[in-house]
Amino acid sequence: MDKDKSIKEVEGTLSRGSNFKIESKDFNKCVDHIIQLVKDSFMLFQMKSFSTSLFLSIAVIEEVGKIHVGLFTTRKNEVKKDPLRDHKRKQIMGSNYTISMGERLVNAIGMKRLEEIYSMSYSGQLKDLREKAIYCDYEDGSLMIPHECIDKQFSKDILLFAIESFDDNLVGYTKYSIERSKITDEIFESLLID
Amino acid sequence: MDKDKSIKEVEGTLSRGSNFKIESKDFNKCVDHIIQLVKDSFMLFQMKSFSTSLFLSIAVIEEVGKIHVGLFTTRKNEVKKDPLRDHKRKQIMGSNYTISMGERLVNAIGMKRLEEIYSMSYSGQLKDLREKAIYCDYEDGSLMIPHECIDKQFSKDILLFAIESFDDNLVGYTKYSIERSKITDEIFESLLID
Repeated sequence: MDKDKSIKEVEGTLSRGSNFKIESKDFNKCVDHIIQLVKDSFMLFQMKSFSTSLFLSIAVIEEVGKIHVGLFTTRKNEVKKDPLRDHKRKQIMGSNYTISMGERLVNAIGMKRLEEIYSMSYSGQLKDLREKAIYCDYEDGSLMIPHECIDKQFSKDILLFAIESFDDNLVGYTKYSIERSKITDEIFESLLID
Repeated sequence: MDKDKSIKEVEGTLSRGSNFKIESKDFNKCVDHIIQLVKDSFMLFQMKSFSTSLFLSIAVIEEVGKIHVGLFTTRKNEVKKDPLRDHKRKQIMGSNYTISMGERLVNAIGMKRLEEIYSMSYSGQLKDLREKAIYCDYEDGSLMIPHECIDKQFSKDILLFAIESFDDNLVGYTKYSIERSKITDEIFESLLID
C-alpha cells in the first residue's frame, strides 16, 4: 500500500484551491448528507441489491474526501479540472492511510482486503467499478449486468470501508457529528453479523 | 414539447453505430437489470430517501434509452463521443414522445408535469439534477444537500415516468419482458396510492 498517495493528492488539491469551500456553519449538514447515503447503501444491501449498494458506498468515499478537503481549501471561483469534481481523485482522498489504523475495520475485513481496496482506489479500478455497479455493458463480448458481477462480500466490505472513512475523516469536528455517528456505528455492527 | 427531439437523437445515434450492440440472447438480462433499478428506486422512495430514489429513476431512463437503441444499432468498435455513453443523450432517447401517449402516465402525473419532464430531459436540466440528487454542492453561496432539494412529489413523478419509459420502449420484445413487467406495473400502482 502506498502510504503517501492519498495525502499527496490532498496536498495537491489544497494548493490549487476550489469553488467547493465548506463554511463551518454548513458542516453538520454535510454530516447528515453522508449519513443518508450510508443508510441508503445499507438498506439496499439488506434487500440484497449489492451492486446499487456498492455504487452508493463509493459515493460515500467520494463525498467524504470532497467534504474533508473542502473544509480546508481556499475558495477559488474557477479551477480547471478541479480534483474535487473528479471521481478518481475524490476516491483517493477518501481512501487515506489512517483508515487502516482503525482496529475495527482491520478486524472486520482483514488487512489483505484492505490493501486490495486501497489498490483499487489508487489505480482507478474503483472508478471503473462505480460505473459497472449501476450500468450494464459488454466486456470481451459478454454482457455484464451490475447485480450479476458484484457479490455480497465485496459490497459489504466497501460499505464498511466507507463508514470507517467517514469516521476517520469527518467525525469529531463537531459534537453533532459524534452524536450522529452512532447511526453509522450501528450499521457497522449490523454488517458484522450479517 | 418537441415531438421529434428524441427520435432525431435516436436516428443520429443509429447512424453512427456503437460498441454497445445488444445481442438478442442478452435482452432478457437487460430487462432484469432495469427491473432491479426500478425496485431499488421504489424501495428508497418508500424509505423517504427521495433524492437517491430520483438518481436511480434517472438511471432507469438512461438505461432504457441505451438498451433500446443498443438493440438496433450496428456494432462499431470505436465511436468517439458515443451518444450511448452520454448522460444527456441517453436521457433524451429514453424520453421519447410516445411515452406521453400512454393514458396511465398522463392520468397519474398530468400533462403539465409530463411536459415539464420532457423539457428538463431535452434541455440538460435532468442531467444536472442527476448530480444534485447524489452529491452536495454550493449554489449561489448556499450549500445544497440532495435530500433537502428534491421533494417527494417530483421523485415520485420521475419514477412513474421511468417505469412508463421502460414499458413503452422495452416491454413486448419478449414474452419474458411482458411477464416481468408485472412487477413494475405493481410498483406503478403502489405509487399512485402513496
